[in-house]
Amino acid sequence: MSPDIADLVLPRELRAQLATHVRLLPDPAGAEVHASFPGALADAEILLSSWGCPQLTAEVLHHAPRLRAVMHAAGTVKSLVTDAVWERGITVSSAADANAGPVISYTVAMITLAARRTLTMAAGYRTGWPQTAGRVGGDGLTVGIIGASRIGRGVIAELARSDASYRILLSDPYITDDEASLLGAQRVGLDELCHRSAVVSVHAPLLPETTGLLDAAKLALLPDGAALINTARGPIVDTQALTKECASGRLEAYLDVTDPEPVPPDHPLATLPNVLLTPHIAGAQGTEVRRLGRYAVAEVARWVGSEPLLGEITRQSLPRLA
Amino acid sequence: MSPDIADLVLPRELRAQLATHVRLLPDPAGAEVHASFPGALADAEILLSSWGCPQLTAEVLHHAPRLRAVMHAAGTVKSLVTDAVWERGITVSSAADANAGPVISYTVAMITLAARRTLTMAAGYRTGWPQTAGRVGGDGLTVGIIGASRIGRGVIAELARSDASYRILLSDPYITDDEASLLGAQRVGLDELCHRSAVVSVHAPLLPETTGLLDAAKLALLPDGAALINTARGPIVDTQALTKECASGRLEAYLDVTDPEPVPPDHPLATLPNVLLTPHIAGAQGTEVRRLGRYAVAEVARWVGSEPLLGEITRQSLPRLA
Repeated sequence: MSPDIADLVLPRELRAQLATHVRLLPDPAGAEVHASFPGALADAEILLSSWGCPQLTAEVLHHAPRLRAVMHAAGTVKSLVTDAVWERGITVSSAADANAGPVISYTVAMITLAARRTLTMAAGYRTGWPQTAGRVGGDGLTVGIIGASRIGRGVIAELARSDASYRILLSDPYITDDEASLLGAQRVGLDELCHRSAVVSVHAPLLPETTGLLDAAKLALLPDGAALINTARGPIVDTQALTKECASGRLEAYLDVTDPEPVPPDHPLATLPNVLLTPHIAGAQGTEVRRLGRYAVAEVARWVGSEPLLGEITRQSLPRLA
Repeated sequence: MSPDIADLVLPRELRAQLATHVRLLPDPAGAEVHASFPGALADAEILLSSWGCPQLTAEVLHHAPRLRAVMHAAGTVKSLVTDAVWERGITVSSAADANAGPVISYTVAMITLAARRTLTMAAGYRTGWPQTAGRVGGDGLTVGIIGASRIGRGVIAELARSDASYRILLSDPYITDDEASLLGAQRVGLDELCHRSAVVSVHAPLLPETTGLLDAAKLALLPDGAALINTARGPIVDTQALTKECASGRLEAYLDVTDPEPVPPDHPLATLPNVLLTPHIAGAQGTEVRRLGRYAVAEVARWVGSEPLLGEITRQSLPRLA
């Protein structure tokens, strides 16, 4: 990994901890790391990677004859791993679990704002003090969660422990009524979720089946004054359709991801008062990326100790993951 | 209370519950309620009040010879209660406890946003994709809480259970080191709190001693890039000094209250991109005001059953409360 990323993800104390389990090749603080890739892999059995790691192509793996495991101290491994990795039988682990905490907190904050129509209230304030009659609170509000991913489940758990008695709907093709109920949610189809929810939050992975999932027809099902939150992936929502709904004032949106990303600076989603557009800040950043390093180091320790990995990704599971 | 407030605070099922404990005089759904005040108090032993209730002056109490208790289904009783109430020995209870939940959730959401400098990130996005280097996360962030009020304590409890390992500082003239420590916070003086905190949230009552508490000198102690959150009372913060700090881009602010309130529509606090100005929406509103009615009805039940009240306010405690 590049030195600036390494300093954030693997600060000195984590490197020291890592060195108690394995011999480090090369010193990840060294400026030569990036330049010498894949040469640095000549003797490596484990690759501890993060954002910016070159793709593990057959060509790269050719230079890494001893490589047996990749511990990715970041989220998705989709741009890192190729068929060549699976064909070599290399074990792959992702620290995506460790990225979930910040996204869950951020999303719950957005739901709390959306429950009070905060953006609409703030915009309305600029033209006068909003009437009491138009004010809404969170109690008993119906919140729709799309996707029972680790983040989707974490958001549900936080909402379920809130004192706001939210009604939580969950749409996911792979979950049963009972599983949803155990989480504290009611399983419904996507149309019903859109139709009933005052706040909808997207937590599905980006797959062919989820691209454009929230299109104009689905968004039109949302009740007037509803809010859409997307901290997952931009292309799951039809940008043009959402822009139209927000420009008309019918929907609020809290968007940490968009399609395209970034949107052009003069795009309505960047300027509408009822849209909070943020530059992909919900995931681990700043001091939080250390969580990913900690997770990856713990995976290395488990690997060395022949314990089961917690973040292992298989060729079979990858298509359904973010 | 006026019919529209009564419908929100005391909907049918709560009135039915109330009627199992006391005889209702008059039917609080009746349009005559407001018009006939204080005539309606002629036979009343308990007054169940809420927002908009006329002040309980000596003149009003003169028409309420049997009145022994006031259960206020709203927050502060400061504009309701007069010396005449205390001199008559009337018991007073406030549902302020029940108002705390929504304010705590809203404030924690604001802290979560502030920890990522969300407003600055959103504003920066309009002029280009912000660099990774400028991004901050919540892990290990120092959050300063001013005031160990019920809301201040609730916010601390939520922060302490977060996985972000916040360092929590608490400034309150009436708390000890040990009490702060039990809450999960470190007690410090206000200057130290301002100097060390990346996010400061105000939870003090408005008193002569707290008016202008965060003046230009205190705000100047906050580190560059820090955020101020105020969901308490506007006059605790010097509006002009804060405006200057936000206009320069040095501080972010999340303000649900201001001084004056409302601010004029063209005020910088209403238009600066690094300020989220909301029209006093953190407290119970919409479906949430029912919490206050539930609390007040439960107080009536306790009173009738000769159980201790949970929300009793005394003449001595009032000056230190919000």
